[in-house]
Amino acid sequence: MIEPPTFAVPSGSFLGIGRADAGAEFVIAGIPLDIGTTNRAGARDAPRAIRAASRMLVDGQHPHWWFDPKTMPLSDIGDLQIALGDIAASHALIERQAGMLSHLVAFGGEHGVTLPLLRALRLRIGEPVGLLHFDAHCDTSEDNFGQIHAHGSVFYHAIMEGLVDPRRTIQIGIRAPMPRDMWDWTLGQGVSILTAQDVHASTPDKIAAQIKGVLGPAPSYLSFDIDSLDPSCAPGTGTPEIGGLLSWQAQAIIRRLAGVKFVGADVVEVLPACDVSEITALAGATIAWEYLCLLGANR
Amino acid sequence: MIEPPTFAVPSGSFLGIGRADAGAEFVIAGIPLDIGTTNRAGARDAPRAIRAASRMLVDGQHPHWWFDPKTMPLSDIGDLQIALGDIAASHALIERQAGMLSHLVAFGGEHGVTLPLLRALRLRIGEPVGLLHFDAHCDTSEDNFGQIHAHGSVFYHAIMEGLVDPRRTIQIGIRAPMPRDMWDWTLGQGVSILTAQDVHASTPDKIAAQIKGVLGPAPSYLSFDIDSLDPSCAPGTGTPEIGGLLSWQAQAIIRRLAGVKFVGADVVEVLPACDVSEITALAGATIAWEYLCLLGANR
Amino acid sequence: MIEPPTFAVPSGSFLGIGRADAGAEFVIAGIPLDIGTTNRAGARDAPRAIRAASRMLVDGQHPHWWFDPKTMPLSDIGDLQIALGDIAASHALIERQAGMLSHLVAFGGEHGVTLPLLRALRLRIGEPVGLLHFDAHCDTSEDNFGQIHAHGSVFYHAIMEGLVDPRRTIQIGIRAPMPRDMWDWTLGQGVSILTAQDVHASTPDKIAAQIKGVLGPAPSYLSFDIDSLDPSCAPGTGTPEIGGLLSWQAQAIIRRLAGVKFVGADVVEVLPACDVSEITALAGATIAWEYLCLLGANR
Amino acid sequence: MIEPPTFAVPSGSFLGIGRADAGAEFVIAGIPLDIGTTNRAGARDAPRAIRAASRMLVDGQHPHWWFDPKTMPLSDIGDLQIALGDIAASHALIERQAGMLSHLVAFGGEHGVTLPLLRALRLRIGEPVGLLHFDAHCDTSEDNFGQIHAHGSVFYHAIMEGLVDPRRTIQIGIRAPMPRDMWDWTLGQGVSILTAQDVHASTPDKIAAQIKGVLGPAPSYLSFDIDSLDPSCAPGTGTPEIGGLLSWQAQAIIRRLAGVKFVGADVVEVLPACDVSEITALAGATIAWEYLCLLGANR
Amino acid sequence: MIEPPTFAVPSGSFLGIGRADAGAEFVIAGIPLDIGTTNRAGARDAPRAIRAASRMLVDGQHPHWWFDPKTMPLSDIGDLQIALGDIAASHALIERQAGMLSHLVAFGGEHGVTLPLLRALRLRIGEPVGLLHFDAHCDTSEDNFGQIHAHGSVFYHAIMEGLVDPRRTIQIGIRAPMPRDMWDWTLGQGVSILTAQDVHASTPDKIAAQIKGVLGPAPSYLSFDIDSLDPSCAPGTGTPEIGGLLSWQAQAIIRRLAGVKFVGADVVEVLPACDVSEITALAGATIAWEYLCLLGANR
Amino acid sequence: MIEPPTFAVPSGSFLGIGRADAGAEFVIAGIPLDIGTTNRAGARDAPRAIRAASRMLVDGQHPHWWFDPKTMPLSDIGDLQIALGDIAASHALIERQAGMLSHLVAFGGEHGVTLPLLRALRLRIGEPVGLLHFDAHCDTSEDNFGQIHAHGSVFYHAIMEGLVDPRRTIQIGIRAPMPRDMWDWTLGQGVSILTAQDVHASTPDKIAAQIKGVLGPAPSYLSFDIDSLDPSCAPGTGTPEIGGLLSWQAQAIIRRLAGVKFVGADVVEVLPACDVSEITALAGATIAWEYLCLLGANR
Repeated sequence: MIEPPTFAVPSGSFLGIGRADAGAEFVIAGIPLDIGTTNRAGARDAPRAIRAASRMLVDGQHPHWWFDPKTMPLSDIGDLQIALGDIAASHALIERQAGMLSHLVAFGGEHGVTLPLLRALRLRIGEPVGLLHFDAHCDTSEDNFGQIHAHGSVFYHAIMEGLVDPRRTIQIGIRAPMPRDMWDWTLGQGVSILTAQDVHASTPDKIAAQIKGVLGPAPSYLSFDIDSLDPSCAPGTGTPEIGGLLSWQAQAIIRRLAGVKFVGADVVEVLPACDVSEITALAGATIAWEYLCLLGANR
Repeated sequence: MIEPPTFAVPSGSFLGIGRADAGAEFVIAGIPLDIGTTNRAGARDAPRAIRAASRMLVDGQHPHWWFDPKTMPLSDIGDLQIALGDIAASHALIERQAGMLSHLVAFGGEHGVTLPLLRALRLRIGEPVGLLHFDAHCDTSEDNFGQIHAHGSVFYHAIMEGLVDPRRTIQIGIRAPMPRDMWDWTLGQGVSILTAQDVHASTPDKIAAQIKGVLGPAPSYLSFDIDSLDPSCAPGTGTPEIGGLLSWQAQAIIRRLAGVKFVGADVVEVLPACDVSEITALAGATIAWEYLCLLGANR
Repeated sequence: MIEPPTFAVPSGSFLGIGRADAGAEFVIAGIPLDIGTTNRAGARDAPRAIRAASRMLVDGQHPHWWFDPKTMPLSDIGDLQIALGDIAASHALIERQAGMLSHLVAFGGEHGVTLPLLRALRLRIGEPVGLLHFDAHCDTSEDNFGQIHAHGSVFYHAIMEGLVDPRRTIQIGIRAPMPRDMWDWTLGQGVSILTAQDVHASTPDKIAAQIKGVLGPAPSYLSFDIDSLDPSCAPGTGTPEIGGLLSWQAQAIIRRLAGVKFVGADVVEVLPACDVSEITALAGATIAWEYLCLLGANR
Repeated sequence: MIEPPTFAVPSGSFLGIGRADAGAEFVIAGIPLDIGTTNRAGARDAPRAIRAASRMLVDGQHPHWWFDPKTMPLSDIGDLQIALGDIAASHALIERQAGMLSHLVAFGGEHGVTLPLLRALRLRIGEPVGLLHFDAHCDTSEDNFGQIHAHGSVFYHAIMEGLVDPRRTIQIGIRAPMPRDMWDWTLGQGVSILTAQDVHASTPDKIAAQIKGVLGPAPSYLSFDIDSLDPSCAPGTGTPEIGGLLSWQAQAIIRRLAGVKFVGADVVEVLPACDVSEITALAGATIAWEYLCLLGANR
Repeated sequence: MIEPPTFAVPSGSFLGIGRADAGAEFVIAGIPLDIGTTNRAGARDAPRAIRAASRMLVDGQHPHWWFDPKTMPLSDIGDLQIALGDIAASHALIERQAGMLSHLVAFGGEHGVTLPLLRALRLRIGEPVGLLHFDAHCDTSEDNFGQIHAHGSVFYHAIMEGLVDPRRTIQIGIRAPMPRDMWDWTLGQGVSILTAQDVHASTPDKIAAQIKGVLGPAPSYLSFDIDSLDPSCAPGTGTPEIGGLLSWQAQAIIRRLAGVKFVGADVVEVLPACDVSEITALAGATIAWEYLCLLGANR
Repeated sequence: MIEPPTFAVPSGSFLGIGRADAGAEFVIAGIPLDIGTTNRAGARDAPRAIRAASRMLVDGQHPHWWFDPKTMPLSDIGDLQIALGDIAASHALIERQAGMLSHLVAFGGEHGVTLPLLRALRLRIGEPVGLLHFDAHCDTSEDNFGQIHAHGSVFYHAIMEGLVDPRRTIQIGIRAPMPRDMWDWTLGQGVSILTAQDVHASTPDKIAAQIKGVLGPAPSYLSFDIDSLDPSCAPGTGTPEIGGLLSWQAQAIIRRLAGVKFVGADVVEVLPACDVSEITALAGATIAWEYLCLLGANR
């Protein structure tokens, strides 16, 4: 039996894997919640778009790790249930569902979905995790224009709730305008910040070494906001900022993180209605694939 | 002083009017709330897009009414305050702000914003209003996938709360799949429904006569969901349905409604990120302009 | 359990039905073959796009038939296998696979896929079928620029191979430039042709009556080329021609065909890369849904 | 030798004709002047886009006239020279070049190019011509925001300069806001105006009869502004107005004009940067093709 | 009072500042003149698009300078008056209006608008200014296809008229094909040129040092043509050239220019109709914001 | 006579050269074959789009080589004949036509077209050529989902047929997932591979030196798959992969290859329907122009 050509890969699941076992060791799930975004909306359509774009990654192995994540105990359970138009109820639903899963790789939705994911992880792990956070924004505001749980306050609450260990937290790609006190608070908590300009002035080797130094050997989480990438690489997102990372930089950094004990990940803020010929959705799919290959090839 | 060319009309207000008096007899306001939408999101960007597109309507008079709404006591007060990511709080804010305004022409946002507008109107008018409702959907569901105040349940609540008089309510352009009991409930309340196919099989003269017959001489409200138009005329919307009204039909019908005692209106569900060269935003702006000219030319 | 909101309907199958039984009475299948198109390519992506767009049709019943096709014995088996870059081998594969299915509703791909579908039907039915053919083009060329089995020659061969009965064949929406001898040949075979201008000058009632007169009570097939619709309604197609049918006309005609004994159907030539905010994909999905509702509600 | 498939038709000339004889009886020329437009710019790219889109019209004969304009003595001489950024100098150049050509079918550029074309025609014909003018706008302003020769004043000057006979002038599709005195002036000159709503309320037969009544047997000119069409059919234009003609209506009207003594034509205001999948460019190309077939089939 | 979310920032002024005092120390103004462009047109729409995109920059301080330009004595006076379709008259109007303003940050329009801005500055400053010129093109042609004041000849005239001091002029990002004699003339005048390849082969530190060396301590002007950026970062422009600067490079260079005595700036050649999800407009807005922060934080 | 402005350059030939002599020393030809692509289709439209985009390169000389390829003995013969929908027949036609031409610079179409071009070259040169191959994919699969001559197997066959010398073959930009055995086979044949990450970690100087070392002084061929570029620089392609080369890198490398004895080249896989404002088409045109300038300036 010949495999279907790329364009005919079934689009209903990531990498066309067609396995939906909620008990799988690695689980893909979409979380189509986007109502906490502060600028352009529409990230609810991301899980569908990322799954469709992942067809480009099906035919073969990762050219660095020589690993194919379809060979992992990996399933795609579809999208988690959310409560339409209700952040608090959605977060509760997400936390409950995520709590029943093993190693989860989630596709947002906006960045707010990371908070209930971290809450579920906190329960499962029993201690705050380290955090590798790619983003244009620190997302450590106490609230967003009055909304406590919107996409720009997720890590304020994650720190305050003891979900992540700020001294084991590093943010990569930061470059948006922000209140100075938010920056100071973040650093004051012990968080490490590498701005996008820091990345451009450095090398993937050095950046990866810094990340590994911060994360250490304890359990860590990857939260990849697609707006960490430059708008040229990721036009399909809600709060773009120029001057961002190029996709090769993100890939190069992630490939140098073998040994980090990742226990979960998300790729958030892909906004298909603002995308161009699927390039942002493909970037999102590829980052998830890089993550899976990193883990799969190194265990 | 020569007027600026069309492309240089200031885009910060509808028709470039540059008047923002909250006490004006007719008031334009945007309501960038879109979190109760059930499919594609992004109607929050509509007020900005509709205002920008209205530059095409600045230079001259309506070619049927020979009236220019800029000569009305009309102001554009910008966007109403909403609560980010919170439907209930937003509705409360919208109702309170709308309650302080006279004749309001609002630009959504999704259709849910009509509910607090009608609540405010109910307080001001003191009785249920008649309703002329252009839409592909009845929007008379009791809830939307569990959410009580999303964009598909607005007129269920408007009827149940006594905000609109169902026997003085007429819906134009209906054509979406829907549960049969929702259809039956709507008719059972006394609402008149003209499907899109009914409109195509009839004439604007007859449709307008039916509308006037239903609305009668008492105060009435116009709620214009842009998805009443066919996706060819309005691709930029969240829940498109094929087979809809052409824009000339909507214009022809509205122009035949002189004498109806309108006390407020909204144009909702324009979604700029899915639009094409501003044609949906222009349709939204033009409908509002038709409405203002209808009123201004006939008082 | 609350149904997922529209945006979260699983996109891997038509209407999110999630049933893939090849032995179901009604079967949906995609056929991502597009190499026989003569202008813009890319209809291979249509099955994925039509399935995704069908989420708009999930929540409720058809507003004329009050029928929900999800209640039919309907499955979506995914895409048929094709031979990459090889028309003849693909046609053989399509015919063989279609031959094992019951009542098939296929999503092309380009129009050439209809030929093997009709061959399979001929074997199953044992006689030529009647044909209702919506299209801007007659598709009765003997070949296409030297290619015998491209998308513009499908019905020449279908007639010559005795797959369809030309006297029970009617074409709706024809309007493209064509060689006069092709037109004459088609009429000479006994085919009825209603141009797009004929449709615009008539009414759905009359058109439907003509169709029923031509098709009669024997088994018939519906082949719906999306380019029968006007480019305003269906920009996402490979060989657009202006002046076409509006989508409401196509719907109105199909709804008047109760009693026709349809034994299969296809919707072809949707080209997502040229589409706008999914409106063409939605048109394709809606036509298939109209067809299923027509059959389901009237048996 | 097999003709090239549609996608491979040479794009450098209209219909791929590849004849560039300035002395041909019928001559196609582009006029990439767009600096007199008052809203969105970019019609300078229209000649290239219309030529490319015309590949859809190459393979066969007109399905009403059974005529192929490639069989006419027709050439495409490319684009006329213009003076970059200078309306007056461009008009002088256009007039001079057009004066050396026989029956010209020109592709704008913005509508201002019609003025020098009519000046050249006046010299050649020796009397004012009749005018069939499809447009959303009367274009009879004395000036445009101070600019005397922009795209909205062309027919004011054409009338005042005695280039067209206002009593033999008819405008079809008018619907934009305009100053009342401009409307009154136009009617006062004897011009006939059929608004878009007039067209929707009538039939092509009646409209064509009115046109023939106005134009009479003397020489006439066709100026087709693509914005006469509805934005759904022609999103790619600079000054769109909703409620316009559908492309089938324009085609139906033109096909009923056999016998009118046309001496020249233009298709203007196509704006490719705002187009969608070439549908506006195709509409422009098709209108020119309809015109050529009307003339070629009836002489 | 809670600030409005990003999507609700009023779009009528830069950064939503809502101050329009022509006598402010720093003044924003749009100049919607685009008729001197030599390829794609439409930069007239840039002021509106840049203002709208600037909403992303409102909420917080510059993450390097920790400065918010809204705290400066800054106003946005809207768009300068231009003469529709007339370069010379527009330049005269621009010069006159600019002459009445203090430190102006202008949004083109095409690059030709810089000439009257420099003329006004020459009058105000009393001596030629230094020039920092980001561009893909030298713009030192004597004329453009016969047009003396189009967008490619602005700095020829600025030098010849003594508006800028060529020995204090440096061009960054140059890479377009050009006549050799234009290159030689430019160098011969004493202008420094750093090609895009020079920038890619160097570092922001070195480039900034070169710029400061050229500009010295006397008054200087920044003219930022958005096509200095790579088409991936700025697809929305009229004369793109591949191989350009990435947006982070432009930002990094500008941030290293503290101490330069800038007396005015412009951002030109943004073309919204060719943009993708506002990324070019955002780039333009961000460059202006970088400039304002550089000045505001260092005075 | 003044040259036409950029927007008015005739679009029917590359650089508007208007010379179509098949016997010219350097010949441009399009090859609109795209049926062997495995993901998104539509590269058939590339020759038209690349020719149109090349208007940006007409006015002047290459800013490094100070050479204008219009001064070369260069012609554009239009598109080669292909067999619609038939890979084998098309390849035979391409080989035959290419065999009659001198130094050919071809615009695909998909990458499969390179095989018959290399076959023709083998006959003309009499020995295997060296190969400089820019691509995201090795294209050394034995077949593609069962299709022997699709776009991903071209260099397997080129090596096996002795058309290229694998020890004189170097691939630049490789980064797609692929079967490990394909990678091993390629290296095993002696091919040199520089991944995209290798390029990002190196410099154009070093990369060019490696290329020259591999190619040596014997005849070599350049095959430039546009998907070697990052999707940000080339969204308009069928099989995008993130992390690719930036266009400046490709230009910098090619400019350092003076002395390589190139005997032919192609630019393939541009897909206009997925492009954004022509940036991919411009990239394709610019690469061809770089190649011509490299050769023209150094002979």
